[in-house]
Amino acid sequence: MVKKLALLGAGRIGKVHARAISEDKRAVLSAVADPMPGAVEAIAEATGAAVQTIEAIEADSSIDAVLICTPTNTHSDLIERFCRAGKAVFCEKPIDLDVKRAEACAEVVRATGGKVMLGFNRRFDPHFQAVRKAIDDGRIGKVEMVTIISRDPGAPPPSYIKVSGGIFRDMTIHDFDMARFLLGEEISTVTATGSVLVDPEIGTLGDYDSASVILTTASGRQAVISNSRRASYGYDQRIEVHGSEGSVAAENQRPVSIEIANGNGYTRPPLYDFFMTRYTAAYAAEITAFLDVIENNATPSPSIEDGLIALKIADAALQSAKNRSVITL
Amino acid sequence: MVKKLALLGAGRIGKVHARAISEDKRAVLSAVADPMPGAVEAIAEATGAAVQTIEAIEADSSIDAVLICTPTNTHSDLIERFCRAGKAVFCEKPIDLDVKRAEACAEVVRATGGKVMLGFNRRFDPHFQAVRKAIDDGRIGKVEMVTIISRDPGAPPPSYIKVSGGIFRDMTIHDFDMARFLLGEEISTVTATGSVLVDPEIGTLGDYDSASVILTTASGRQAVISNSRRASYGYDQRIEVHGSEGSVAAENQRPVSIEIANGNGYTRPPLYDFFMTRYTAAYAAEITAFLDVIENNATPSPSIEDGLIALKIADAALQSAKNRSVITL
Amino acid sequence: MVKKLALLGAGRIGKVHARAISEDKRAVLSAVADPMPGAVEAIAEATGAAVQTIEAIEADSSIDAVLICTPTNTHSDLIERFCRAGKAVFCEKPIDLDVKRAEACAEVVRATGGKVMLGFNRRFDPHFQAVRKAIDDGRIGKVEMVTIISRDPGAPPPSYIKVSGGIFRDMTIHDFDMARFLLGEEISTVTATGSVLVDPEIGTLGDYDSASVILTTASGRQAVISNSRRASYGYDQRIEVHGSEGSVAAENQRPVSIEIANGNGYTRPPLYDFFMTRYTAAYAAEITAFLDVIENNATPSPSIEDGLIALKIADAALQSAKNRSVITL
Amino acid sequence: MVKKLALLGAGRIGKVHARAISEDKRAVLSAVADPMPGAVEAIAEATGAAVQTIEAIEADSSIDAVLICTPTNTHSDLIERFCRAGKAVFCEKPIDLDVKRAEACAEVVRATGGKVMLGFNRRFDPHFQAVRKAIDDGRIGKVEMVTIISRDPGAPPPSYIKVSGGIFRDMTIHDFDMARFLLGEEISTVTATGSVLVDPEIGTLGDYDSASVILTTASGRQAVISNSRRASYGYDQRIEVHGSEGSVAAENQRPVSIEIANGNGYTRPPLYDFFMTRYTAAYAAEITAFLDVIENNATPSPSIEDGLIALKIADAALQSAKNRSVITL
Repeated sequence: MVKKLALLGAGRIGKVHARAISEDKRAVLSAVADPMPGAVEAIAEATGAAVQTIEAIEADSSIDAVLICTPTNTHSDLIERFCRAGKAVFCEKPIDLDVKRAEACAEVVRATGGKVMLGFNRRFDPHFQAVRKAIDDGRIGKVEMVTIISRDPGAPPPSYIKVSGGIFRDMTIHDFDMARFLLGEEISTVTATGSVLVDPEIGTLGDYDSASVILTTASGRQAVISNSRRASYGYDQRIEVHGSEGSVAAENQRPVSIEIANGNGYTRPPLYDFFMTRYTAAYAAEITAFLDVIENNATPSPSIEDGLIALKIADAALQSAKNRSVITL
Repeated sequence: MVKKLALLGAGRIGKVHARAISEDKRAVLSAVADPMPGAVEAIAEATGAAVQTIEAIEADSSIDAVLICTPTNTHSDLIERFCRAGKAVFCEKPIDLDVKRAEACAEVVRATGGKVMLGFNRRFDPHFQAVRKAIDDGRIGKVEMVTIISRDPGAPPPSYIKVSGGIFRDMTIHDFDMARFLLGEEISTVTATGSVLVDPEIGTLGDYDSASVILTTASGRQAVISNSRRASYGYDQRIEVHGSEGSVAAENQRPVSIEIANGNGYTRPPLYDFFMTRYTAAYAAEITAFLDVIENNATPSPSIEDGLIALKIADAALQSAKNRSVITL
Repeated sequence: MVKKLALLGAGRIGKVHARAISEDKRAVLSAVADPMPGAVEAIAEATGAAVQTIEAIEADSSIDAVLICTPTNTHSDLIERFCRAGKAVFCEKPIDLDVKRAEACAEVVRATGGKVMLGFNRRFDPHFQAVRKAIDDGRIGKVEMVTIISRDPGAPPPSYIKVSGGIFRDMTIHDFDMARFLLGEEISTVTATGSVLVDPEIGTLGDYDSASVILTTASGRQAVISNSRRASYGYDQRIEVHGSEGSVAAENQRPVSIEIANGNGYTRPPLYDFFMTRYTAAYAAEITAFLDVIENNATPSPSIEDGLIALKIADAALQSAKNRSVITL
Repeated sequence: MVKKLALLGAGRIGKVHARAISEDKRAVLSAVADPMPGAVEAIAEATGAAVQTIEAIEADSSIDAVLICTPTNTHSDLIERFCRAGKAVFCEKPIDLDVKRAEACAEVVRATGGKVMLGFNRRFDPHFQAVRKAIDDGRIGKVEMVTIISRDPGAPPPSYIKVSGGIFRDMTIHDFDMARFLLGEEISTVTATGSVLVDPEIGTLGDYDSASVILTTASGRQAVISNSRRASYGYDQRIEVHGSEGSVAAENQRPVSIEIANGNGYTRPPLYDFFMTRYTAAYAAEITAFLDVIENNATPSPSIEDGLIALKIADAALQSAKNRSVITL
């Protein structure tokens, strides 16, 4: 039977998910909620969904699942409410900027037996999936060292930095989750350094714009993460895993792969310059995976626990960078 | 106002176009025709189109345009009928296997002032478009030499070879059109060679499976085409244009771009292995271009003349290969 | 015992060979001849060789072998003289610009049982050697189609064009030899086209600066060659062999392999811009191979016959381009 | 006037340097010393140098400079002796495994005004030189983050590990020097982690075989180093510098750059598998630079101070890894 979904939050990521739902025959978007007019009506019109309040969606027993695409500070409350309402939940990362609030939320999920999937979209990128598959297929032997280079095309505005929770909770959190996805062992220590090299105003706001992190696991596996809020050449997203018998790497992606040669050399175009175009396929695959969860009543992955652990690593990274110390989790 | 389209032929390419229409707000697929049951109903259900006869579509004055995705031997007749019916026409290549029949058809198009766009999908590939844009932007100076390497993953079955018109009319015709698209001048001479290296049965049927072609223009520009019906590593589709001030090349495409390194070396996955996955974006962009034509009453490109010229080059190539001579158009 | 060699011709290629000899313990350069003062003394000083006349070298029974690096129009005479003198001969390509003269020379070589190796240096390039080894190791199955793209950084001056024998005998001859080296079968037909796109003065001198060639073998194997006298991005030297089970390609070479990324894209430096730096390793390996021949009294390869065949293909190409016809050898 | 050099230590690196000297007209190798018979005579024979004792070389006033290629534990003593003897000194890294001993040695160099160049060969690699030049030319703006991935093909034997000083003083020391070469600022903090993932015996000997390091400078620039003693795909040597306006990277190097495509994908050969073949050009350029120093009485670079600083960073890295702390220099 076709599942009925509701979307909470009609921003740009909500719109992407709405479209993905409309292309999957197993589901229909039956309601969309957002306090701001405009975008919500556009999504309703494009998909046939009804514009509803969150309360109405909560009370509508015909709705099987919700997608939480609202601002971060509402995530925990909404996850709890919809778990209690017995609906499957897809929620954008992070659970909350405050790890204690996130833990309390996870406790409610556990207590209610809620099905909650966290929006770490990069796990669903086909290139990164292929990296993981190469590991699982034994192509590189035992995983030893993970290298992640992740740079945004440009720094967000101060208004965003202020509510972002800082670079580790906002940006590096994706890389922490990716490192866990690839290392195959839990993180045991975190060492981070942060600097302000891109935009002094980011420093004024108490945040960093450039960061390096080393993660280790109990058996000594290591991950290194390099972040910058600005890359002149586009959205730089590379991962590499070195193992006992080989290595596997995912290359950067660009909209067109041509090469122009002249007296200055051989030039390929810049990379994608926006996370939503870079990760188009990942966003679609993520929703497909959520629909699989709903349809088969399966265990969601990434789970609320994955979200909680990534947040704890982010907190440890911040503490490490502030105190210049190695943090043991 | 939303344009109403009808699809003739519910095969795999028809299905691709039906989907593209359903994703464009400017158009709706209102009818679909195919004598074979099954696929036609599936498309009707997915898009909301009515299953109709070709006659009914022809008679329906509310339909603005048709997409002809039927077998090749019906193309000319259908183009003529729907031009006479005053509808815009998108038709898969080739116009006909017989150049005289194709010329007669083109004459009807001219006489009726019909809007006919030919399905040379590769012109719409974003990578090849970027190559053409680099030329148009003057990045490589004056065009001098075009190199096209085009190899299918595997040879089609004998049943297809028999009705295909031979490698030059079926396969190389795409490359002839691409060479024209990039050379910026009309072809004046054609020299071709063909061999049977892949499958002896293809030879038994009087066709070739491996071919090399040199095209020249009046000013001495040259294009070289290399074709094979089989490439163990996937669907090999490369173009390169050498000019007075530089060169531009489009690289091959693969589903995932990872690289695995071990004692045997560094290995990237094979290419796409199917023209429909390789050219997904091209097929979508092609329909977008056709809808632009309908909406703005613009001149279609590639036009019926482009289809006719490519067919004449194909005929010359076959004559050249058979007689081992250089053919002047 | 250390072999004694003499160098005829103290030009730039002679100097390269002199250096290679001085680095191999099996040989010593004992004499060097050149009518022009200057370069000959410099080579003598650098290597300890004596400056001698050709006659003296011919008469010196202690000399085992000569390297002929003199102008093309002296090659045939010198090959014959030194074969008659019982010395092993290394000669730069071509044997002669006139195929009849070259045939007569080859006849003398046969009659005297002379050991003559021709300077098709590219056969010794480590990358092209690796291509050949991949074929020999069965990595690509049966060879079917060879693609050679060969472009000079810039056109030579008119003074050189005048004595060069034309693009096919001067430039494409290397590619003809490479095609034979890789096809594994003799060439049976030649089709060539030539244009003047780079420098009108080349046309005035009756030559071409841009050429495309198709070669075929008896079993239907095909080679395609694309030549230009000018490439703004450096010395473009690519070969690719397509076989029944795979393909092998040699990439272009550049002095340094860095990549700079910025808002304009990802740029690698231009290629080598000179044949002597591009083929440094090939020139050294070529002389090593000649010393192997002398030491072990082995059959030279490439042989005088290889030189003769390449010249005949060049003549056929010229005839094909002039008459716009397909030439059967 | 031609400079006279003496070589101390006839091991494999001594042999490489002897050859480089013999190819430079500005210098001659006049003496070679080594207590072990065999290799020393071979070098003497190949170059014309006399076999001498160190004492005799020290006393020979005609000798301008020495190259110290003896075991590490003799470096400090020999540097001091030959500085006092007024000869220019080239010494392989490290100065000493003990930083205090190295400091005392540097003090002697300063006091005697000795010309000492340290053998950080990688600074002379043409690809890394091109990276540095891109920075100096302003191609990437202000340097912000350096990434160095450095992996040996295979772990050395326990006998070597025992006398190596550990991974940071033996292997990472090259990367510390490279980071300084590229960062353009002195290192202010060091954070390192080490594990035993490759060979348990390395752990038994108290060393690590896998290490990650973060370096920072006063202005917040960051460098990340990733080391492993084993890479199945060859000698992995990559550097990348991210700046305010772009990025520059040096790619890995392989003996031949061909690519074989088949049903398993596209495969390029493994990398160089030995540091001496990977860095052939760097070793030659390093000696050329030393001869420039001697000829022009210029300041050596890398200097004894560079050697001392790299050693101090290595000590800090070891302390950081042992104590799991961030070390401020």
